[in-house]
Amino acid sequence: MSKGLPDRSNDFSAWYTQVVNRAGLADHGPVKGTMVIKPYGYQLWENIRDVFDKMIKETGHVNAYFPLFIPKSFLAKEAEHVEGFAKECAVVTHTRLKSDPEKGIVVDPESELEEEIIVRPTSETVIWSMYKKWIQSYRDLPVLINQWANVVRWEMRTRLFLRTSEFLWQEGHTAHATSEEAEKETLDILELYRQLAEDYLAIPVITGLKTDSEKFAGAERTYCIEAMMGDKRALQAGTSHNLGQNFAKAFDVTFQTQDNKEELVWATSWGVSTRLIGAIILTHGDDKGLRLPPKIAPIQLVIIPITKSEDQVNELKAYLEPITKNLKESGIRMHEDWTNNSPGFKFNEWEMKGVPLRMEVGPRDVKEQKVVLVKRDGKEKLFMSKNNILDPIQKLLKDIQSDLFDRARDFRDSNTHRVKDYNEFKSVISRGGFVRCGWNGNPETEASIKEETKATIRCIPFNEEPKGLSCIFSGEEAKHEVVFAKAY
Amino acid sequence: MSKGLPDRSNDFSAWYTQVVNRAGLADHGPVKGTMVIKPYGYQLWENIRDVFDKMIKETGHVNAYFPLFIPKSFLAKEAEHVEGFAKECAVVTHTRLKSDPEKGIVVDPESELEEEIIVRPTSETVIWSMYKKWIQSYRDLPVLINQWANVVRWEMRTRLFLRTSEFLWQEGHTAHATSEEAEKETLDILELYRQLAEDYLAIPVITGLKTDSEKFAGAERTYCIEAMMGDKRALQAGTSHNLGQNFAKAFDVTFQTQDNKEELVWATSWGVSTRLIGAIILTHGDDKGLRLPPKIAPIQLVIIPITKSEDQVNELKAYLEPITKNLKESGIRMHEDWTNNSPGFKFNEWEMKGVPLRMEVGPRDVKEQKVVLVKRDGKEKLFMSKNNILDPIQKLLKDIQSDLFDRARDFRDSNTHRVKDYNEFKSVISRGGFVRCGWNGNPETEASIKEETKATIRCIPFNEEPKGLSCIFSGEEAKHEVVFAKAY
Repeated sequence: MSKGLPDRSNDFSAWYTQVVNRAGLADHGPVKGTMVIKPYGYQLWENIRDVFDKMIKETGHVNAYFPLFIPKSFLAKEAEHVEGFAKECAVVTHTRLKSDPEKGIVVDPESELEEEIIVRPTSETVIWSMYKKWIQSYRDLPVLINQWANVVRWEMRTRLFLRTSEFLWQEGHTAHATSEEAEKETLDILELYRQLAEDYLAIPVITGLKTDSEKFAGAERTYCIEAMMGDKRALQAGTSHNLGQNFAKAFDVTFQTQDNKEELVWATSWGVSTRLIGAIILTHGDDKGLRLPPKIAPIQLVIIPITKSEDQVNELKAYLEPITKNLKESGIRMHEDWTNNSPGFKFNEWEMKGVPLRMEVGPRDVKEQKVVLVKRDGKEKLFMSKNNILDPIQKLLKDIQSDLFDRARDFRDSNTHRVKDYNEFKSVISRGGFVRCGWNGNPETEASIKEETKATIRCIPFNEEPKGLSCIFSGEEAKHEVVFAKAY
Repeated sequence: MSKGLPDRSNDFSAWYTQVVNRAGLADHGPVKGTMVIKPYGYQLWENIRDVFDKMIKETGHVNAYFPLFIPKSFLAKEAEHVEGFAKECAVVTHTRLKSDPEKGIVVDPESELEEEIIVRPTSETVIWSMYKKWIQSYRDLPVLINQWANVVRWEMRTRLFLRTSEFLWQEGHTAHATSEEAEKETLDILELYRQLAEDYLAIPVITGLKTDSEKFAGAERTYCIEAMMGDKRALQAGTSHNLGQNFAKAFDVTFQTQDNKEELVWATSWGVSTRLIGAIILTHGDDKGLRLPPKIAPIQLVIIPITKSEDQVNELKAYLEPITKNLKESGIRMHEDWTNNSPGFKFNEWEMKGVPLRMEVGPRDVKEQKVVLVKRDGKEKLFMSKNNILDPIQKLLKDIQSDLFDRARDFRDSNTHRVKDYNEFKSVISRGGFVRCGWNGNPETEASIKEETKATIRCIPFNEEPKGLSCIFSGEEAKHEVVFAKAY
């Protein structure tokens, strides 16, 4: 048996680090703050990517690819944007190395660039510089482009999947003829993010609007999906921005309207990243490790043969062959573990890796023409006839998927509080959890609360009911009902 | 009608540039030498990627993701490797921008990195630094990892798809217990590259070994697939490297063998890139623009309604609906062009974009319950009953696929020459084409020929027959039969 994980309730952060490591999801790269996504973690990302890629293609979006490198001057064209990203930029200044007799390989000073280049932290600027070339008339609109790419934001305090200097994401960048159309796009995408999170990752989310102090640098409005992690902290899982005409202004992108006027183009941008893998771990993980929602699990069913001798191996392989053939053809993602480790070791390992369903098959099962199924969560052994196995497995996977969601939703709801005063607010925040309460709409209030409690407004939820509420901090009439929490 | 393309036979290079532009494949990015892959070009890349991704997964490979950033010192660990890449590296030296009252946004000198970072030109070094952590025993081998990623090589003279500062590719990096296994992997992958090129891209290739002067910086042996472009120049379309123990040595990666010895690990690496899109254009393009092999064409069939009035539009839409439904369900990738442009304009546009098959449908076809099909290549109109359309279309697409291949193979073969002496060699090379001839195996011979004619040895083909040949340059007995050509 492998050693246990750190106690989740005691040291959630150490537990997280160990799960990422022992489930084989990721590793630290050699340059500080960078991440290696290992094959098992990358398969998870591929599954998430494929789901969302299908969603956006079905709604008329297309993929493209824009350069990694952005001229420094571009970043500076939108004032808020550069303010938001200047402090965490990787800057390319030279283009050549050379041998130095004393110091070995050094940067060739003669290769210094005239204008420094920024490694993209996000691609609004480079993309809108292209849209200027591509958009002339209303007939060129809308432009509904997405890209799957790596981006770099220099982070000092990093944690695998949650905050790394480089991460993978999709970034959508759309261009529209009207403000209304841009707003609709922003909200339509948010709804796709909600579906991705809830229906596939089994992560319940709150949808809503970010306050001005939390919105994207360069956006008019940022919408988000916010989730509660297993330690009751919030995690921003995806954002969709209505950029108004800010980037069109910065890059002078106008179009000729149907009635022959010249107008600035309206923009949106939106992204989810490999951070979603962190969200899955933090939402569903337990004392035995990872738990993966079947819909996106790289392996949905692991088969553990229980054998003692070589003869049994051959017998079991023959017995399993038609079973696995049937399952594979039905699209079940499965893996047979024929390594020499003990069954107990294997059970632990695949539980650590979060595989939803385990099948055990030994000589007695062959005799009885049965297999044994065990859910990742349960101890109960489910015996079934080998001839009627597909339906029960599909049913079990479906149940596991919805159980994970229900459990996470119940956890979130039972840790979401309404409070009667600021003292209770502080007490809840310090214990952990979401607080739904009134806010007077003042950024200074928000800043004071953050200063005192480290809690931030996660969003103004779409289903807010501000009527009759007073601001938790000032006691004034509430302008909004908001969700406060400490966040990742 | 759109203006014609530059004359292919006169200015192949201008023709290429125009096709890339007018087919909507790619554009230049703002930083010199960078490329924007536009949606139509990116769909092509997605289709190529999906084909090859399936091939490698079926042969036991898995995807992962390694960091973009490599410490400068890593690149220097393998002597030949740094030699090969030092002259074209993007170097990150700072991590922050700041506002300067006089100069605007400047690089913050206080953010200078202690050790400079290289933007990966290829990932052997960063990956082998990780393999050192992951590989201890023969039980950890083989490691069969691939990644889809962007890489950067600073190029002074760039051309879209063929040579850009940043490009997309896959890079496989495998680790093995024996030299034989590594060699087998190198050759197995080369065979997959051959299949990808010939069976999907319809590009005939020569498979063979690179000479020492043309091999990958850090490899023991480089195998390649080489193709002939429409201007009779060669293009290296993919390479597979047997790296021996060079990177294991550089990063001290050893493993415990089954009989308890400590040995260095054996390595391979292999890659194909967005350059393949350039190869498709250069191989199949003609005076009307692009021609795409149906198996990887984003659009296999374009439907052009021939209408005069709104009434006809509705009638045609109703007529087409069951037809397109049937085709879509059968997996035909299709597009209906309902824009207001004239049929002639549309014909030209979709020919420029290389769509293999066009369907024309007008009021008379509705009356006769027919549709008209026209191949990208042909003028002939094929009339068919609307009730029996799927089989003929599938047959036509298959024919177009094999016709493209046959035509390219015939072109290559008829431009591949055997020559009697060096004078004839020079004359063929200056006119354009491949020369198969003897070579004494001497790198100086190779260098002299390159100096005089600009032709390089593209490869020592697997089917070489050196017996009885003499070296085209020295007249000595030939060590190898090789393929010479001027190359991209």
